[in-house]
Amino acid sequence: MSITELPPVTAPVYERMSEARKAEVVHELCQILGPRYVLHSPYDLTLYEYDASIDRSKPEIVVLPSTTAEVVAIVKIAARYGTPVVPRGAGTGLSGGAIPVYGGIVIAFSRMNRILEVDYTNLRAVVQPGLVNLHLSNALNPQGFCYVPDPSSQRSCTIGGNVGENAGGPHTLIYGVTTNHVLGLEIVTADGEIVEVGGWTYDTPGYDLTGLLIGSEGTLCIVTKIIVRIVHLPETVKTMIAVFDMMDDASNTVSEIIASGVIPAAIEMMDRMILAAVEADSHAGYPIDAAAVLLIEAEGLSESVADQIEQIVNICNKHQARLVRIAANEAERQALWAGRKNAFGAVGRICPEFYVQDGVVPRTKLPYVLGRISEIVEHYGLRVGNVFHAGDGNLHPLILFDSQIPGEVERVRQAGHEILQICAEVGGSITGEHGVGMEKQQEMALIFSDVDLRTMQQVRMAWNPSQLFNPGKLFPLPGRCVEVKQL
Amino acid sequence: MSITELPPVTAPVYERMSEARKAEVVHELCQILGPRYVLHSPYDLTLYEYDASIDRSKPEIVVLPSTTAEVVAIVKIAARYGTPVVPRGAGTGLSGGAIPVYGGIVIAFSRMNRILEVDYTNLRAVVQPGLVNLHLSNALNPQGFCYVPDPSSQRSCTIGGNVGENAGGPHTLIYGVTTNHVLGLEIVTADGEIVEVGGWTYDTPGYDLTGLLIGSEGTLCIVTKIIVRIVHLPETVKTMIAVFDMMDDASNTVSEIIASGVIPAAIEMMDRMILAAVEADSHAGYPIDAAAVLLIEAEGLSESVADQIEQIVNICNKHQARLVRIAANEAERQALWAGRKNAFGAVGRICPEFYVQDGVVPRTKLPYVLGRISEIVEHYGLRVGNVFHAGDGNLHPLILFDSQIPGEVERVRQAGHEILQICAEVGGSITGEHGVGMEKQQEMALIFSDVDLRTMQQVRMAWNPSQLFNPGKLFPLPGRCVEVKQL
Repeated sequence: MSITELPPVTAPVYERMSEARKAEVVHELCQILGPRYVLHSPYDLTLYEYDASIDRSKPEIVVLPSTTAEVVAIVKIAARYGTPVVPRGAGTGLSGGAIPVYGGIVIAFSRMNRILEVDYTNLRAVVQPGLVNLHLSNALNPQGFCYVPDPSSQRSCTIGGNVGENAGGPHTLIYGVTTNHVLGLEIVTADGEIVEVGGWTYDTPGYDLTGLLIGSEGTLCIVTKIIVRIVHLPETVKTMIAVFDMMDDASNTVSEIIASGVIPAAIEMMDRMILAAVEADSHAGYPIDAAAVLLIEAEGLSESVADQIEQIVNICNKHQARLVRIAANEAERQALWAGRKNAFGAVGRICPEFYVQDGVVPRTKLPYVLGRISEIVEHYGLRVGNVFHAGDGNLHPLILFDSQIPGEVERVRQAGHEILQICAEVGGSITGEHGVGMEKQQEMALIFSDVDLRTMQQVRMAWNPSQLFNPGKLFPLPGRCVEVKQL
Repeated sequence: MSITELPPVTAPVYERMSEARKAEVVHELCQILGPRYVLHSPYDLTLYEYDASIDRSKPEIVVLPSTTAEVVAIVKIAARYGTPVVPRGAGTGLSGGAIPVYGGIVIAFSRMNRILEVDYTNLRAVVQPGLVNLHLSNALNPQGFCYVPDPSSQRSCTIGGNVGENAGGPHTLIYGVTTNHVLGLEIVTADGEIVEVGGWTYDTPGYDLTGLLIGSEGTLCIVTKIIVRIVHLPETVKTMIAVFDMMDDASNTVSEIIASGVIPAAIEMMDRMILAAVEADSHAGYPIDAAAVLLIEAEGLSESVADQIEQIVNICNKHQARLVRIAANEAERQALWAGRKNAFGAVGRICPEFYVQDGVVPRTKLPYVLGRISEIVEHYGLRVGNVFHAGDGNLHPLILFDSQIPGEVERVRQAGHEILQICAEVGGSITGEHGVGMEKQQEMALIFSDVDLRTMQQVRMAWNPSQLFNPGKLFPLPGRCVEVKQL
């Protein structure tokens, strides 16, 4: 039968459980986990109704398993009662991936947070999904190693969450995203089977299910163990800022650096609004009157880094950088990065509410798209700041707003939607690293045809026919009804 | 329903067509393609009954389409008649991926061999599946760019075939395999839909179907267009050989180079038997009395390469290399590589028939596994040569044999099977880059559990429920019956 002849995959809408039913489920879960690790009072559940996006929805039960066997038991109980299951790392996601749209059971992985094995010779580590991203590198650094993917939330986000969303970070530019650093997974399927996909080596035979599952946002399976690549720390790291009076000069510098064949470890861009916020917050030494600053990092062998830095400085100067400054020592370097990594928090000083968009465009389109973003946001009477992975063309406009003003939330959403339309129009993508979740379901149709989406949904049906795993995510829905979080 | 409760996915066995039926199908295909591009005489079909593996099976019809629309039409005709469809690049595959086990229609992509687009600024190219791998880099080199994956067969193999098998090559060590260099595909599904997966950017949202399809060996879809990454040519490339009197010293050198944090672009190893064959064939300057030679390449910025080479030389010397020689110029460098890349052909001078195995082991297990390979092959009264991607732990033992000796082919297969058992035992994989095809279906069970394999088969059923795409491949079969090719 043709995909187009198949009935459309309907997204089921799950009812919340009756109190009696819920008590039964809680009782069964307590038998497995002990009552301490089964949360169900309204007070306890409040913490789990939101992530870092603007949506929210309360789970009915939260469980905190400590073993894969417990996860299997939870999945089987949920399947028996037909209640949804939503995995959750640290709740730092920006697209609503961990929000239980239809209630059900949230599996919080905070207790499954151990490093199970490190093999320094073969450059592998095996970790549990609840491990905080930065904790892995912290454990590896003294031996001279690290785990590469470094989302800005790395001090709190978990590697399991990173796998679910295929997270990126500043160093994506040279090292790729999470999928490039994960070789194998232990997963629990919708029917409670434990399956191992991928493995210790690079190119395991058969279908690349590891690749398929990474970034599947909890809709296909529950991940219980992760085999990651680790790498040697670079011999030398040099970090610099280049200050520009014109945004376009900064954008063109980025294009020319990459086109010249130099691929730095990271190229981040911050605009005037963000610089003011960051500097007020962290005093990292960023100029507050510039139009844009590039934060550029080169790493590798000392000689190679010196050579790269020289080329980068020349290109910056050619594009009218008014100042190029290389961090003189590790403290200065850390201060520059702290400013960048805390940028979202720093914006909180200017405005209590903001909405982060995430799109990707070809680097050569940066000047055009940044201009269009300003126009769109202005049209809706809003303000925007830009802080993003410029080397990848991965934009993060932060739209400031005040939800007390009637209609403002809707205007923010509309502006966000139009920004993604521009990204799609110029041949880019509607998300770089934050995922689709609840936020960008409708926008999937901007870059995928009906047949493309139906093909993906057939894959979902093969894995998870009842759609109990993270229902109501990833694919366009006819309509949805959840609260918007008051920040 | 649980995966284990589902009826096992049965591999259909297709009957060959009656002459009348075949004439009908040929007629329909001629309407679409013109008679020139529909081959069906026994003479014409002979060329398409084998690849570079030891199996063979004749197709019933071979078609040579020139457009995606023609591929759609072919797939729809095949579906209507219930006859298998097998895509074929250059037939250089080593695991029988392009052999039509049950006859049916072979789609040969030799006419869809164009470079459709090159975007030097954003480092992308769009190509057709029949493009010969090396032709892409040849086209890019004058502008200072190249396409990285370089299988040893790159002078004849096609990028479509590379996608089907997720091909590697010597430079996999630092740059990864085909899946790391392909960003998007245009495919034709089993029901004749044209679907685009992935795209121009790195991290498209939704399921990573590009990753799933790469390496799916023609069992899920027919690829008609490929978006690849291109890269700048490195500023400097240095190539050296290190000569050892003991195999273990060479193996330990490999482990220590990687463990030291230097990741060269390639580390290839050749043993005494291979060296003799290569030197007799190409006079590249390899010593014929050594136990093992490492061919090591470093590339990047000049200063970095100089530094790497110095560290590598020190490690080689520490492990009793009796000679380390750096290619003095490009001609010498090319000669060393020509020797390595023609090694399989050179072995043909020593022995008319050989069987190439392909397995992966952790680098630290190389001395143990190489020892075990010798023992196994000796046990069966056979001879073996080793030429392989040592940096990846990706072995390629070549077992020499003579199919005129009764029972010899069976002994070769048995030795090959036992070698893969060792690879699996030490935590490796049954294939590094040559695929599963018809050759390693049974060995899939060495590294995947029943549930793992059932999970993969469910994915296949979702894409291709009638299993007309390349049937009889990839998964263990109860039994099979094909001829063994006389080399």
